[in-house]
Amino acid sequence: MPAKLILGTEIREQILEEITKEVAEIKGKHGVVPGLVTILVGANPASISYVTLKIQTAHRVGFKEMMPGKPINESNPDLKSLPVDISEADLLATIDNYNKDDSVNGILVQLPLPKHIDEKKVLNAIDPDKDVDGFHPVNVGRLMIGGSEVKFAPCTPAGIQEMIVRAGVETSGAEVVVVGRSNIVGKPIANMMLQKGPGANSTVTIVHTRTKDMASHCKRADILIVAAGVPDLVKPEWIKPGACVIDVGVNRVGEKVSEKTGKKIAILKGDVNFDAAKEIAGYITPVPGGVGPMTITMLMKNTLKSLKFKLGIA
Amino acid sequence: MPAKLILGTEIREQILEEITKEVAEIKGKHGVVPGLVTILVGANPASISYVTLKIQTAHRVGFKEMMPGKPINESNPDLKSLPVDISEADLLATIDNYNKDDSVNGILVQLPLPKHIDEKKVLNAIDPDKDVDGFHPVNVGRLMIGGSEVKFAPCTPAGIQEMIVRAGVETSGAEVVVVGRSNIVGKPIANMMLQKGPGANSTVTIVHTRTKDMASHCKRADILIVAAGVPDLVKPEWIKPGACVIDVGVNRVGEKVSEKTGKKIAILKGDVNFDAAKEIAGYITPVPGGVGPMTITMLMKNTLKSLKFKLGIA
Repeated sequence: MPAKLILGTEIREQILEEITKEVAEIKGKHGVVPGLVTILVGANPASISYVTLKIQTAHRVGFKEMMPGKPINESNPDLKSLPVDISEADLLATIDNYNKDDSVNGILVQLPLPKHIDEKKVLNAIDPDKDVDGFHPVNVGRLMIGGSEVKFAPCTPAGIQEMIVRAGVETSGAEVVVVGRSNIVGKPIANMMLQKGPGANSTVTIVHTRTKDMASHCKRADILIVAAGVPDLVKPEWIKPGACVIDVGVNRVGEKVSEKTGKKIAILKGDVNFDAAKEIAGYITPVPGGVGPMTITMLMKNTLKSLKFKLGIA
Repeated sequence: MPAKLILGTEIREQILEEITKEVAEIKGKHGVVPGLVTILVGANPASISYVTLKIQTAHRVGFKEMMPGKPINESNPDLKSLPVDISEADLLATIDNYNKDDSVNGILVQLPLPKHIDEKKVLNAIDPDKDVDGFHPVNVGRLMIGGSEVKFAPCTPAGIQEMIVRAGVETSGAEVVVVGRSNIVGKPIANMMLQKGPGANSTVTIVHTRTKDMASHCKRADILIVAAGVPDLVKPEWIKPGACVIDVGVNRVGEKVSEKTGKKIAILKGDVNFDAAKEIAGYITPVPGGVGPMTITMLMKNTLKSLKFKLGIA
């Protein structure tokens, strides 16, 4: 029997509906909505398309979405950016203003930044209590400490955990194997799954490029989370029958013409050989349409959470 | 052939000699020595004996050791403590003064604190750049991020890594199994061993009370790090022949009369059945005399490191 698909596109809709409902309730009760600031410097096309999707999502769930700077084009006056030659000091001052602004619950700085600006310095300038991306060292530390200490889990790992839980997969005592040790996915999801508490309590192994026998570890996994960035890395024979396979890889392996738009688009492949794996796994996420849609969704959830922390209702 | 013993008592001496030498060099070149502040509130006997050992060690390596408050007894005027009824605000003000004091490179607050004081609030008030215990969320986050981001690893895990490296045990590609998921040992050492870089690059599994088959994981371990706090938890048949076994457990299982002093002292046992395990393992740490002596040693190393960061020579 082929695996049950865990579709990020579907779970996204559920979560965004839940957020929309909660935002309306909080608005009625407390007279405020979550405020999310996105800071875009320059006009990198990939950044623009990501930010555009984020603004649309924020509007949809009823957030107040703010961007500093001037509109990039007339058709979308909400999409603004700061000049590409902005000084680091001015950018830091902009962040500082939003740190102090009570109507702002989340601050995002879209990467990459121009080369004359120190990215780390800029990201670390965001108030950790408004760091809805969850990458500030304080929030990374809180995540590892666990329990009530955690404020914002980074969005992709948070989305992965949400998918596993909503699919009804048991995590307590489960063997979780994480492939890849990035700071964006591998390390945080490993640390999240080993904590005490619901949606976690797993036995966690993290494997990577220096691991001697990756296959044997994957074969033990009840939940296999693959974030290596190598297309088809995980072979079907590495998958334990019935396992839950979460494929975080988004690898561009070619181009095709979109049926919808007629434009050239990238052909995407995951880190798992999907067609073969789905005959063995119990649950599996496709690429695209799996983990991908969860990231912006969890960004919205973190921003709502930030307001709830502030109101003392989290 | 019985296992090679990894003796914390011996490695401590090596490291303290290295520190003493480096402190003298820095004093000659820069005219400063590391300054370590220990804050003791009240006169808990266990805290006093720990703090006394720390002061002796700091003096030995040439640090400037400071304690706020009044001497506890006349025989040791350096051993001071703050009144047990000190207010939280006064304690925070004391810490703030040391945060601003340029001659201070490390600040320790001895736990436990009296119940009217919020321990977490006090610990988080320490400047992360003087947090030589490495428990501030910022330093926990830096540890998980890894690489050049790391400032201070917490002392017991840092000591464990140092012991493994100095014993000449290969860590790259090694199967490391960590038993226990505490914030003091299990989680930090797991995160340290999986990082890129020397003394790490291991494949890491973390097992705990919810793990279904702890034995089978331990049997895979090239390096087995046990920090569960359960005497004799790890059976000899769980140990892979030739493995490196690091026993972090310090369990009081009874009392005996000391041959040296004639006083009653605790009988200590590790988490590993030492007598049987040493016939199978390749390397093993005894209890006592294994990991124990490393903690204060690494505290000294972190304090020296803090001064070196400040001088730009780390």
